[in-house]
Amino acid sequence: MSEQNKYILGEDRIPREWYNIAADLPAPPPPVLHPATGAPIGPDDLAPLFPMALIGQEVSTERHIEIPDPVRDIYRMWRPTPLHRARGLEKALGTTARIFYKNEGVSPAGSHKPNTAVAQAFYNKQAGVTKLSTETGAGQWGSSLAFAGALFGLEVKVYMVRVSYQQKPYRRALMETYGAKCVASPSTETDSGRAVLAAHPDSPGSLGIAISEAVEVAAKNADTKYALGSVLNHVLLHQTVIGIEAIEQMEQADAYPDVVIGCAGGGSNFAGIAFPFIGKKLRDKTDVRVIAVEPAACPTLTRGAYAFDFGDTAHLTPMVKMHTLGSEFIPPGFHAGGLRYHGMSPLVSHCKELGLIEARAYHQNPCFEAGVLFARTEGIVPAPESNHAVRAAIDEALKAREEGASPTILFNLSGHGHFDMQAYTDYFAGKLEDLDYDPKALEDSLAHLPKVAAE
Amino acid sequence: MSEQNKYILGEDRIPREWYNIAADLPAPPPPVLHPATGAPIGPDDLAPLFPMALIGQEVSTERHIEIPDPVRDIYRMWRPTPLHRARGLEKALGTTARIFYKNEGVSPAGSHKPNTAVAQAFYNKQAGVTKLSTETGAGQWGSSLAFAGALFGLEVKVYMVRVSYQQKPYRRALMETYGAKCVASPSTETDSGRAVLAAHPDSPGSLGIAISEAVEVAAKNADTKYALGSVLNHVLLHQTVIGIEAIEQMEQADAYPDVVIGCAGGGSNFAGIAFPFIGKKLRDKTDVRVIAVEPAACPTLTRGAYAFDFGDTAHLTPMVKMHTLGSEFIPPGFHAGGLRYHGMSPLVSHCKELGLIEARAYHQNPCFEAGVLFARTEGIVPAPESNHAVRAAIDEALKAREEGASPTILFNLSGHGHFDMQAYTDYFAGKLEDLDYDPKALEDSLAHLPKVAAE
Repeated sequence: MSEQNKYILGEDRIPREWYNIAADLPAPPPPVLHPATGAPIGPDDLAPLFPMALIGQEVSTERHIEIPDPVRDIYRMWRPTPLHRARGLEKALGTTARIFYKNEGVSPAGSHKPNTAVAQAFYNKQAGVTKLSTETGAGQWGSSLAFAGALFGLEVKVYMVRVSYQQKPYRRALMETYGAKCVASPSTETDSGRAVLAAHPDSPGSLGIAISEAVEVAAKNADTKYALGSVLNHVLLHQTVIGIEAIEQMEQADAYPDVVIGCAGGGSNFAGIAFPFIGKKLRDKTDVRVIAVEPAACPTLTRGAYAFDFGDTAHLTPMVKMHTLGSEFIPPGFHAGGLRYHGMSPLVSHCKELGLIEARAYHQNPCFEAGVLFARTEGIVPAPESNHAVRAAIDEALKAREEGASPTILFNLSGHGHFDMQAYTDYFAGKLEDLDYDPKALEDSLAHLPKVAAE
Repeated sequence: MSEQNKYILGEDRIPREWYNIAADLPAPPPPVLHPATGAPIGPDDLAPLFPMALIGQEVSTERHIEIPDPVRDIYRMWRPTPLHRARGLEKALGTTARIFYKNEGVSPAGSHKPNTAVAQAFYNKQAGVTKLSTETGAGQWGSSLAFAGALFGLEVKVYMVRVSYQQKPYRRALMETYGAKCVASPSTETDSGRAVLAAHPDSPGSLGIAISEAVEVAAKNADTKYALGSVLNHVLLHQTVIGIEAIEQMEQADAYPDVVIGCAGGGSNFAGIAFPFIGKKLRDKTDVRVIAVEPAACPTLTRGAYAFDFGDTAHLTPMVKMHTLGSEFIPPGFHAGGLRYHGMSPLVSHCKELGLIEARAYHQNPCFEAGVLFARTEGIVPAPESNHAVRAAIDEALKAREEGASPTILFNLSGHGHFDMQAYTDYFAGKLEDLDYDPKALEDSLAHLPKVAAE
């Protein structure tokens, strides 16, 4: 056979520990503040929403946190995920760069999201919880938690952003096949949802609204906890299996990346591949550039303020310091539903402030152009979110060709696009607009950021 | 970690040879007859449709046929596929049986079909062919050939059964993302299509009609060859990588199946898992039951005649001896679009006549019930076609519980259901009917089987 283009690890190489970047950062991340008092919160404040094991991970500064055996048992269904050398893409680009990608689309739900869904379901089950509530945008997260809930015997209720609920009936069907209940948000089931509907009966919903609904249900029901698919420290922690495996696979390939790339919405798949490499950089002084890629229509890292803000629209969540467009910001319609959140993970934001990562924003047409080239050369159709990472990898490779350089590029293919084919259809039909955020709306939204004494 | 439930092989264990069951059968299969003369055909008669390498495989009696390196290189993208022990399903059933499944849904197109699509694209490319024409029903085959065509730089034209073209726009989008052209069949592009439209302007199409269109285009254009996704000997040959890997993986699991199960439409995924086990049975006298599962609405093996028949509606293809419902037979609408063909692979039919396999037929609701249970216990949503195999595996396991037996059951999970979620939605809504074939229509259709001197 010709040169190797796929690097696989045995089941015994599924990581035994998650990697916690908090242990290696040169400065600790800012505190989390109570939504009502503005004072730093403690574990007990979060207890209505999360089991204590997850709260412990949220505030931990231990470098390594053991992955429980029942979680690794389920990871074995699809992990370790393959790492590929993109030789077909390299050839099509005529680049002198080497391009590698980690394929998280091989999970049963089709994305990286089950890495944390399984862990969260496990710890909730262990704590005697019987029901989980959550929100979902495009549906990758909701279907992943539904998958994990089915395997652990937990009831799962998903508040799905109404516009996605209507546009993506097959994601909804996937959640229902796994046994979860899925309702359009804003719904009439919660105070938060009813308040939005009273003001805006035709509201298309937003992740911020759906989070308010899911949090409210957990706060009001003793048998129900809340699960979030991105943003929080423990969620990013669970995703580090991606980067831990990738480091070993790149060694197998006798390569170490000069550049590591991930798309970033709330930041979890990006952190999953990037944090283990950043940790290695901090400890071993290995040189690596790390790039977060976001949509130009929701440019949190590149255009947002770095400030304390709420995670949701109804201001039920704690305040965290992050890059934010303001909790009132509603991005224009574009096809990467997983990248539409108004904020960015506090840990990713902190890394940006520390100069550990770069960020860039792309319009959607060049991203789909990249995704189609990837599909035709590598055989895998990426999710619209992942296309942002593909675009950045291609741009880095083209730049290398111009400069006569031969860098090694690694990106995370966070999910496949089988549930997103309407977006590709629209792209081929020339129906996609290269939308930008509205500067005036952003200015207004940022003017309403909460006033916080700690700043 | 707990007991092993996944058996993986390294890249070096991708088979180096396909297995040709013709070498081991106790009686040779009947000849293939010319559509016009009724006389046995030779390789030259097939040359307008297929490159000579594939024709050679079609008539070969060699036991092992080498897999070319460029084909194995592409197989490496997803092969060897994992074999799983279905411990979650076993537990839910309370069965004493051991249930294993081979997961062919991990390919980039989501099914077993790329195993032959890649091989066919390779041999056509090697022969200087630049265009391939084919048909597709549900779209698994069309998208797989589109995938393979993209990787080898071949233009692919797909005639898609009109009712599927309309109901499954996302399968079409997948083909187009891979760069293929897809048109609804019957189309106005061919004599065959125009003839059907003249008689039935609202024709929903059928696989038999779409085959006629694709064959006609290949026969009339020197730069175009035809590719078929099932039925033919060389197609089944390419699928034997499934069973060859499964034999090695079952040895890894220290288990050998008492029962091997596959769903059967044209017969290719069924033969892919079954033929290597049947060959072993014939050579080593190992005991194994082999079960083909088909839909009650299109019961080729259980209700069809074993007779010479055409493969298509316009009678452009050679006649082969097979279990057939007659080339005029149109099954009622049901959701396993890949199991709607009027005939069955001649080799599978021959095995049935030789008593080497059993066959059974199921209605669609019990199949979806089985698929939902599988999704909730094993985490993978099967394609509607694959649900037939899941149902049979569950029934064998339940029978074992009743009998106090502990058999080892292996089935092929031929593809995932991510493009078929409408079917699950309809199932949950109680909209699926347990359709039967129409006995009168079958009688009429069988009355029009071609008269063949060789019989």
